[in-house]
Amino acid sequence: MSITRRELLQGAAIGGAGLVVGKVAFGGDATTTGDTALSGDVGKIAAERGLLDEDVIHAVKTFVAPGKPSMDSHLLFASGGHSGQILVMGVPSMKLMKVIAVFTPEPWQGHGYGADSSDLVMAAGTSAEGGAVSASRPKLGWGDTHHPALSETGGEYDGRWIYINDRANGRIAMVDLRDFKTKQIFDVPNLETSHGGCFVTQNSDYVHISTMQPTLTDRSKAESLITDYKNVMRGYSTFMAINQTTGRMEQERSFQIELPPYTQDLADSGKLVSDGYAFINSFNTEMAFGGNMEGRPPMEVGASKNDFDMMHIINWKLAEQVIKDGKFEMINGMRVIRLDVAVAEGVLHFVPEPKSPHGVDVSPDGNYLCVGGKLDPHVTIFGFDKILAAIESKDYEKLDEFGVPVLKFDSCVAGRVEVGLGPLHTQYDDKGYGYISLFLDSAVAKFSLGEPYFSGEEAFKLVDTLKVNYNVGHLVAMEGDTVKPDGKYLVALNKWSIDRFPVVGTLKPQNFQLIDLTGEKMELLSDTPIGIGEPHYVQSIRTERIKSWEVYPAGTNPLTMELDPNAVADGGQRVERTGTTVEAWMTVMRSQFMPDTLHVTKGDKVIVHLTNVEETPDATHGFAIPRYNINVSLDPGECATVEFIADAEGAFAMYCTEFCSALHLEMQGWMLVSV
Amino acid sequence: MSITRRELLQGAAIGGAGLVVGKVAFGGDATTTGDTALSGDVGKIAAERGLLDEDVIHAVKTFVAPGKPSMDSHLLFASGGHSGQILVMGVPSMKLMKVIAVFTPEPWQGHGYGADSSDLVMAAGTSAEGGAVSASRPKLGWGDTHHPALSETGGEYDGRWIYINDRANGRIAMVDLRDFKTKQIFDVPNLETSHGGCFVTQNSDYVHISTMQPTLTDRSKAESLITDYKNVMRGYSTFMAINQTTGRMEQERSFQIELPPYTQDLADSGKLVSDGYAFINSFNTEMAFGGNMEGRPPMEVGASKNDFDMMHIINWKLAEQVIKDGKFEMINGMRVIRLDVAVAEGVLHFVPEPKSPHGVDVSPDGNYLCVGGKLDPHVTIFGFDKILAAIESKDYEKLDEFGVPVLKFDSCVAGRVEVGLGPLHTQYDDKGYGYISLFLDSAVAKFSLGEPYFSGEEAFKLVDTLKVNYNVGHLVAMEGDTVKPDGKYLVALNKWSIDRFPVVGTLKPQNFQLIDLTGEKMELLSDTPIGIGEPHYVQSIRTERIKSWEVYPAGTNPLTMELDPNAVADGGQRVERTGTTVEAWMTVMRSQFMPDTLHVTKGDKVIVHLTNVEETPDATHGFAIPRYNINVSLDPGECATVEFIADAEGAFAMYCTEFCSALHLEMQGWMLVSV
Repeated sequence: MSITRRELLQGAAIGGAGLVVGKVAFGGDATTTGDTALSGDVGKIAAERGLLDEDVIHAVKTFVAPGKPSMDSHLLFASGGHSGQILVMGVPSMKLMKVIAVFTPEPWQGHGYGADSSDLVMAAGTSAEGGAVSASRPKLGWGDTHHPALSETGGEYDGRWIYINDRANGRIAMVDLRDFKTKQIFDVPNLETSHGGCFVTQNSDYVHISTMQPTLTDRSKAESLITDYKNVMRGYSTFMAINQTTGRMEQERSFQIELPPYTQDLADSGKLVSDGYAFINSFNTEMAFGGNMEGRPPMEVGASKNDFDMMHIINWKLAEQVIKDGKFEMINGMRVIRLDVAVAEGVLHFVPEPKSPHGVDVSPDGNYLCVGGKLDPHVTIFGFDKILAAIESKDYEKLDEFGVPVLKFDSCVAGRVEVGLGPLHTQYDDKGYGYISLFLDSAVAKFSLGEPYFSGEEAFKLVDTLKVNYNVGHLVAMEGDTVKPDGKYLVALNKWSIDRFPVVGTLKPQNFQLIDLTGEKMELLSDTPIGIGEPHYVQSIRTERIKSWEVYPAGTNPLTMELDPNAVADGGQRVERTGTTVEAWMTVMRSQFMPDTLHVTKGDKVIVHLTNVEETPDATHGFAIPRYNINVSLDPGECATVEFIADAEGAFAMYCTEFCSALHLEMQGWMLVSV
Repeated sequence: MSITRRELLQGAAIGGAGLVVGKVAFGGDATTTGDTALSGDVGKIAAERGLLDEDVIHAVKTFVAPGKPSMDSHLLFASGGHSGQILVMGVPSMKLMKVIAVFTPEPWQGHGYGADSSDLVMAAGTSAEGGAVSASRPKLGWGDTHHPALSETGGEYDGRWIYINDRANGRIAMVDLRDFKTKQIFDVPNLETSHGGCFVTQNSDYVHISTMQPTLTDRSKAESLITDYKNVMRGYSTFMAINQTTGRMEQERSFQIELPPYTQDLADSGKLVSDGYAFINSFNTEMAFGGNMEGRPPMEVGASKNDFDMMHIINWKLAEQVIKDGKFEMINGMRVIRLDVAVAEGVLHFVPEPKSPHGVDVSPDGNYLCVGGKLDPHVTIFGFDKILAAIESKDYEKLDEFGVPVLKFDSCVAGRVEVGLGPLHTQYDDKGYGYISLFLDSAVAKFSLGEPYFSGEEAFKLVDTLKVNYNVGHLVAMEGDTVKPDGKYLVALNKWSIDRFPVVGTLKPQNFQLIDLTGEKMELLSDTPIGIGEPHYVQSIRTERIKSWEVYPAGTNPLTMELDPNAVADGGQRVERTGTTVEAWMTVMRSQFMPDTLHVTKGDKVIVHLTNVEETPDATHGFAIPRYNINVSLDPGECATVEFIADAEGAFAMYCTEFCSALHLEMQGWMLVSV
């Protein structure tokens, strides 16, 4: 057999086309398939299934063999849009590994269904000051996640935490990547909404978020928005300080910078040479506010009049010093550098950018800022060195109407590349190329950066374009937001899928398209429907950087990540009654709750401390009480507490909601509520 | 070039191993890749990625080429477990097409976040009678979906509706497959919980659901569960009548059959020869109820003492006649045939089944009922012909303690096959084989049925076993629940995944393993993590049977699927104030709301009628009001109404939550709430 194969290989070499088949070519020992039969099988199957040659190549480029998880070299963390969650997917398999519950309650994970560890997070994420709390609306029950930001050390992902903003309500959440659970939701003062302003500074000192629509500074005067927009509305750039041990955001060490009432949009952190700076796009410098049945133009017209909007350049290290010097005001619990102070201290500069931009994306070396002005067919590439020189030499075009110095466009631009229609967002590979999404063209354009990547004629050049399907929003290249991108793959986040998937209802999925970046030309590998949510921005991380726990140390409270004082081991189970409070310390294990029976009088306060005493990975149990809206997910080692008033009488079959063993169905108990 | 290829083919033929490469082998015209280069590329890529020969085969067997949706020949409808939803996936791609929001609010789909069409469904799904309604718990906010049931005509799926039960709260929901939205949640009287009893009769006359844990018949006497279990607890088999036009369940035409207080578990509908019958497994015929800290055995011990439990055989066509004859009692609004009447009228029989069974699964011809008694290493195969004969000849072993006649086991069994440890659930292919999951062995066993499929020595024989990873629960073969299964693929629903995927937190995904059934031996093709929820049961349907709408007729209310009286077209937009009510008729289109400004006084009732006037597939818009917990998804043509009290003052930036156009970010308006 091996002789035949060798002969064939030689024959192929003679044929001149480099044909390589069999064991060597297919990498590894095939125990169940013959050497030469394989090619025949592959061909036959491909033909039967209607796969073209290129499809076979793409299949082999994307297949993750069962039981070989490391073949998914990267993970994507995608915002879930108005699902309020984060999606975790593998690359190149593009399979959905987990939906992390963040702003929206999710019972499978026991997020917001009675467990103290999640209920406390969600309750703390609604501030009364923001006007959200009322009898009908005691807490915010969903979010619109837009921009995930992985924690960084030295501009590289460190796999510790991920932050994400709620575009709807101006909040920001922190997820711990030890257990992939949401530990904090922070309702940022002075922000009503936010959008693409979420990023982490290169050593995770701060997570940044800015207003999208500006905030009405006096909420008791709503109609003043119409009469006095310029004076009563303000934007805020927010630097939330990160506790380096817990990853939590700390309000008392955080600060904001007041901004004009433009619409602050996408933002990015400086890195390496530009570390210490932040860049925020804006649009609607026209300060339009709609009124299409009141004689004013709709926003889409009113906010698109100016040829240039203003990129905000913020020197946040300088802002730190301004705060240290006490030049701030305390507004709703936040230290705010007023706009005039920010200008006077040199914290804030503007540079014009082509109208209605969507992305400002900093290159791996920190020197280039690529802006897609979505109503302009170019990507405009600013040089940070040029910006810095212009700031230092006060090379101003003018002061804007709020007194902010505006740098000269021509002094700051390093290059422009005509890429196509509707440029939005740029990602980077490891070779000095940028990839920009083209919404209107439904395409991705590849272009070269300048020095030190490319020089002369080779710099700032369009080198390839690939059609995508359809209406692409953002892109993600592997670790493409970091100082050391991996290249390899690009994912196009297409907003529309139209005819790409079986029709499963009037609401269609988004389409994530995986693109191979290893060749000279981009190559479409696969389509993937997004069956839940509407991702906006994605960050990717090398899988090996994630060091998640599989099992908690016995009795861990996920909120503190420490031993819960009410955790019990075998022998510690008990029920105590004090007045009208019934308190139980319960163990949870295959296949019983202990105690499995609770005797309660209607109206009692019931407190149940649950400890999953399992030490085996995957040995998760649930704890549900029918009719009481209670469902807790208890991962191995986890401890959680449920507290409620037993206000419905009857016999309630408490049960395990996670199929845990052959006797899972027998894992139940009774809560008996008598009158 | 083609000569070289031919020479190679000849060479291969001489080699005797049937090597076929190039254009012919790879099926179709390759425009971008050379004939012979391809095999070389495939081999090189496979080697680089560490794929074995068999992996390449599996890649080619499962790859769905971009832009070729019909290559996903089947769709899976999987229960989402305690996520409360339904997952729709493609086969063989195994990609997640959609999470259908059912029992749990889901903002991406606008399910339960202010739109009347979904809020009314969710509110109607909580009956006060069930004890759920209280000040702290006005409605049930999650579910534990277990068993989906696609509508059938003549025992084949017709693609109209899907039903699914809520194991936690004993409810059942209906999803319309024209738009994949939940139209009805029905809180079934006399059921507190349910489990695997959900199925549709072969012409969708009824959807069936039974109690899991029996119901305390007098909820004011909770402690009587301990003192008098046998008398105060009862099970109920429920036949919900289906309206053949709307798919809705109609309480007034439905009925229940009272059952002993065993735990009624999985059930299946008779088909063809057994049409008119229903089969329900039971366990805990011991009537244990735990009490592990009160001197009683835990359920896992107490409910596993008897060697046999009781399969329930229900003649529901006879039950229809009994109801027609008026031999029922009305209990909580349901017509109930009492247990003694059911026995006297011949509606209910038992047959012993090996202890603690999980599945009773009817074969395609309707004659075999395969039972996996999970504490017995056999699959026990009952013959419906034998059961019928035993009933007709009153071939009773005894009457059970509730007076139900128990047929003789030996008279009803057609065959038994030793399959392995922990047999749970059987699915069928198109060739007369059954496939049963083995939870304890983490395997799937393939066995042959009897006449007319196989006879003599070939019948009732174990023919193959395949290891799966790990702890397999249910299985699904393509259309494997119908009278005409497709064979082709099997999916193993593994409860644990342990080491099969990158670790993304302490809560691990389930693992759906795709298995090829076309060969003599089962062949594992791929692993797929389930990133949201915990599927229990899955039904699969040929993709071509689904005839979903892509766009609603203009102004459609998804609840009625008819023109909404408040839908408006261009020109009909307006705002009217009546006392303290502000009512707006608003159009929604790329890229504006009209009107885009609402002027409101704090405390006003605000009613907004939203019509998406788009006619283009995928042109969905959202409508969110920050801080008000409102998010509506408006698919093209859809009309929905939002009503709320404006109890928070300020300026709220209403906006579109679905990225709809290049000027999507400009699609916003303001709600101004003044004091």
